[in-house]
Amino acid sequence: MTQGTLLYEGKAKKVYTTERPEVLLLEYKDSLTAFNAEKKAQLEGKGTLTNLISARLFRHLRDQGVPSHFLEKVDDRRQLVRQVTIVPLEVVVRNITTGSLCKRLGVPEGKVLERPLMELYLKDDTLGDPIVTEDHALIFGWATETDLAMIKSIALRVNALLRELFDRLGIVLVDFKLEFGRTADGALILADEISPDTCRFWDKSTGDRLDKDRFRKDLGDVLGAYREIWKRLEQEA
Amino acid sequence: MTQGTLLYEGKAKKVYTTERPEVLLLEYKDSLTAFNAEKKAQLEGKGTLTNLISARLFRHLRDQGVPSHFLEKVDDRRQLVRQVTIVPLEVVVRNITTGSLCKRLGVPEGKVLERPLMELYLKDDTLGDPIVTEDHALIFGWATETDLAMIKSIALRVNALLRELFDRLGIVLVDFKLEFGRTADGALILADEISPDTCRFWDKSTGDRLDKDRFRKDLGDVLGAYREIWKRLEQEA
Repeated sequence: MTQGTLLYEGKAKKVYTTERPEVLLLEYKDSLTAFNAEKKAQLEGKGTLTNLISARLFRHLRDQGVPSHFLEKVDDRRQLVRQVTIVPLEVVVRNITTGSLCKRLGVPEGKVLERPLMELYLKDDTLGDPIVTEDHALIFGWATETDLAMIKSIALRVNALLRELFDRLGIVLVDFKLEFGRTADGALILADEISPDTCRFWDKSTGDRLDKDRFRKDLGDVLGAYREIWKRLEQEA
Repeated sequence: MTQGTLLYEGKAKKVYTTERPEVLLLEYKDSLTAFNAEKKAQLEGKGTLTNLISARLFRHLRDQGVPSHFLEKVDDRRQLVRQVTIVPLEVVVRNITTGSLCKRLGVPEGKVLERPLMELYLKDDTLGDPIVTEDHALIFGWATETDLAMIKSIALRVNALLRELFDRLGIVLVDFKLEFGRTADGALILADEISPDTCRFWDKSTGDRLDKDRFRKDLGDVLGAYREIWKRLEQEA
């Protein structure tokens, strides 16, 4: 598979064409952004870790029957994925209250929810990715009833599978963000990435933050945390 | 019924006890606020109009079988209502896109929705009344499944009844906000007020704004618009 032209450059990844129109190449970047890209940094080696972790997690999910755009890892920084049309919704699943949820709704930090909470955010940087309801998505045509049912079902299954996996590794899956895409034949599958850039991971015994919150909150050693996640995932394999 | 002690003073109303513990007296104030009370004004006679309009609308809804806290009008400025515990959710029903919805989600202004859109906002001034989903309300205990079903059913029925009423008066009901309360015996009923302070009314032929948007957007003659709503309602009766 050869790297073609740059199709799109996002905050954390570049997307290239390949010789097959239905296959794209993702290159994970070293840039870190937070708060709708108001805070930015470069962290040498970050892209390698998010590529490795994301590939490993998508592979784990595929082994459990969860469809995603992931095809295969090419090298430390790149992976092949299926070409999809991204659904303009960010899907967040929360197991424990923290972050924007607490700020927005005034609920206490660190509360274990009695069941996972799924939220939808409109993917629109200029609007600051506002939270939306399923009704907004239906009425404004961002998703159909069938899409939403499928999204909810996959998101909750991903949550159950990843919680279980990370629990074995001594890590609490606090919350995470998923994106979905539609293939040419109309199927809805997982897309984007799953990594410490898009999940909150807390060490089960120490409570240490092992994710992008280290960057958001200036806790230091961001790369060390990402490396720790990768180290534990490698031991598991 | 005699006016007792001041229980609570809100942005647009004062609440007094009466000699009966299950009955309260609402006094509608002349103050107008917008944008979470960042913009304020006094408009002599506004409280009279909102009291008269709200009493008339609650009476109309009662005649159609919709339960509310409204008991009877006392005079131009005051009405008796049942004592309820307010559910901490503001319930917005929209027929046409405008206002915060368009700003928040980037959808075009003035689009007639294919079906009414109901939204929930957490009643919390310090948080700026953030929008919430039904799942937030359930998980954080602001309402039960039964409450939400009842709220939705009443809100959509109120929308249908008021749309029909105002349509006869040459007025388009664009959107409105409801609040709900729980009586001592656990029933969920409409509470608060229904007036040009809480609804958007557009004149059907001219498109003129006949509601608080005249104040929000400095369109002038706020009181004239409220008077026009009352005049048409009086003609109907």
